[in-house]
Amino acid sequence: MSGLSAATRPKPASIAVLLDLARADMAGVDALIRDKMQSPVSVIPALAEHLIADAGKRLRPLLTVAAARLAGARDDKALMLAAAVEFIHTATLLHDDVVDSSELRRGKVAAHLIWGAPSSVLVGDFLFARAFELMVDAGSMAALEILARASRVIAEGEVLQLTRAHDLGLTQEMYLQIIGAKTAELFAASAEAGAVAAGASAERCTALRRFGQELGIAFQLVDDALDYGGSSEAMGKNTGDDFREGKATLPLLLAMARAGEGERDFWTRTVDLHDQTPADFDRARELMARTGALEATLQLAADYAESAKAALADFPAGGWRAALEDLADFAVARRA
Amino acid sequence: MSGLSAATRPKPASIAVLLDLARADMAGVDALIRDKMQSPVSVIPALAEHLIADAGKRLRPLLTVAAARLAGARDDKALMLAAAVEFIHTATLLHDDVVDSSELRRGKVAAHLIWGAPSSVLVGDFLFARAFELMVDAGSMAALEILARASRVIAEGEVLQLTRAHDLGLTQEMYLQIIGAKTAELFAASAEAGAVAAGASAERCTALRRFGQELGIAFQLVDDALDYGGSSEAMGKNTGDDFREGKATLPLLLAMARAGEGERDFWTRTVDLHDQTPADFDRARELMARTGALEATLQLAADYAESAKAALADFPAGGWRAALEDLADFAVARRA
Repeated sequence: MSGLSAATRPKPASIAVLLDLARADMAGVDALIRDKMQSPVSVIPALAEHLIADAGKRLRPLLTVAAARLAGARDDKALMLAAAVEFIHTATLLHDDVVDSSELRRGKVAAHLIWGAPSSVLVGDFLFARAFELMVDAGSMAALEILARASRVIAEGEVLQLTRAHDLGLTQEMYLQIIGAKTAELFAASAEAGAVAAGASAERCTALRRFGQELGIAFQLVDDALDYGGSSEAMGKNTGDDFREGKATLPLLLAMARAGEGERDFWTRTVDLHDQTPADFDRARELMARTGALEATLQLAADYAESAKAALADFPAGGWRAALEDLADFAVARRA
Repeated sequence: MSGLSAATRPKPASIAVLLDLARADMAGVDALIRDKMQSPVSVIPALAEHLIADAGKRLRPLLTVAAARLAGARDDKALMLAAAVEFIHTATLLHDDVVDSSELRRGKVAAHLIWGAPSSVLVGDFLFARAFELMVDAGSMAALEILARASRVIAEGEVLQLTRAHDLGLTQEMYLQIIGAKTAELFAASAEAGAVAAGASAERCTALRRFGQELGIAFQLVDDALDYGGSSEAMGKNTGDDFREGKATLPLLLAMARAGEGERDFWTRTVDLHDQTPADFDRARELMARTGALEATLQLAADYAESAKAALADFPAGGWRAALEDLADFAVARRA
């Protein structure tokens, strides 16, 4: 009963080709990031280093670089925008962790628990301002417009989430609106800014923006599913944080909507009344699998990933386009 | 003994002429501010309104408008930059109040005590992003560069202050560096951005930047003196907050450096050991007057104000220049 059916199970996917194609560009982005996070005020690079050193795949700047190259960029202007995108992302992570009182980030103790919330807020502000300095260096007013707008939309999405995070009457539409703003908008802007920096046509900029937007939604949906263990084959992450916090993500909203008579008491106790025992998370996962809530979430993510790939239809096949298609598949198939 | 000597007492000053000259422009700035603080996420305009509605004189956008007009601006591009400057300022106030756990702002309960620290952080981010959207609307890459840099310098100044706020071994030089970054940089950038928007020459942009920078230092020095009641004639504000917090501002640094044998025990107990009785603030003010610490702080402010006025020497006399000179005098002579 649990897990994905054969039809919806995404094929094994890897972004090895994309990472290889982008290797030189991403080394340049990394050098820019390390240069621009410096400051004579020593707390700033120390705190920034804590988040940035181990930043994993850097999906958003990768998207900027790949979009620029797919759109025919011959210079390195997009690298500055890619570094700016990573700074905006890091600034939002710092502020989010303060806002949510999170204890962990990227597998490490959250920065505000080491340097204090005030430093996290202010270093976030520093990185945000640095991002705009980098955009000015890149010299593209169009890219500035895209990323300033994205920064504003993200803040709106975060405030919206703050007021609706535990609203279990949230509709799927409202949930998609929130993750569209807080997560997908930066994916969309990252790709669009890369296209703009490459001097792509308006159609191609819009296509790459759409790719980023749909990819971002897919990415967040999978994240939310992974918090309940994802499909039955993939129990890698399994933190259960969202369940413990009673966070209104799609898997929970669907499982509660689809609950039978006896299950409703379980959700009322564990989520509405926040009365949980350690065993409840396994029971929650079981109900999510049985009601198809996880599968439906992952299926929706797969639909968005397909839609992302379709946005690339007018670009030449192979090379960067194939690598970005891999990224869409990877967003759905990943196990962590 | 207390108060200013006749030589250093600033002449009565008013910015009535400046406010009158700038009336139409500032009405335009106000309309822009009210338009751009809107959002479908209702917490955002509610929280922003709390700070922005009663924003008093709006010195920073006033500086942008006046600098632009003095530099010969014939269009309204500077109004967008002025609104952006006010948004940056409001964002920093929201974040500062969270960072300092302040209870009051502009005579009202601080926003984070009404809407919570998370909303204050995120609405600050919203306003900051909106500021950059406004700058993009204004279409001046040079102004964007100035205000992005200023935003970064302010964040650096705030972090520096966070780590040194209670360091009573702070040198005057370091204190001036901190207030130069956290306060004067935005005054400097506000004036420079106005000049740039007016298409002024590099020399005139630099002159107006210098005016803003020196004015900003004078402004903060007077603020710090007013927290101890300013001159003996001016006991309007008298909050004593800085004394209660043991904040390393210039009046306190000077009074402690100039303390006689018997006074040292008083400062050690009240400031180093944070052991204060309600009567101690009056004693602190008395020592500040007796050691000349307040007078020296206000004299330094007067020097900076004179230096600000000197920066305007190459502009045509009268009109906007005279009004800005009034602003420099007002910064020193104000009683609150």
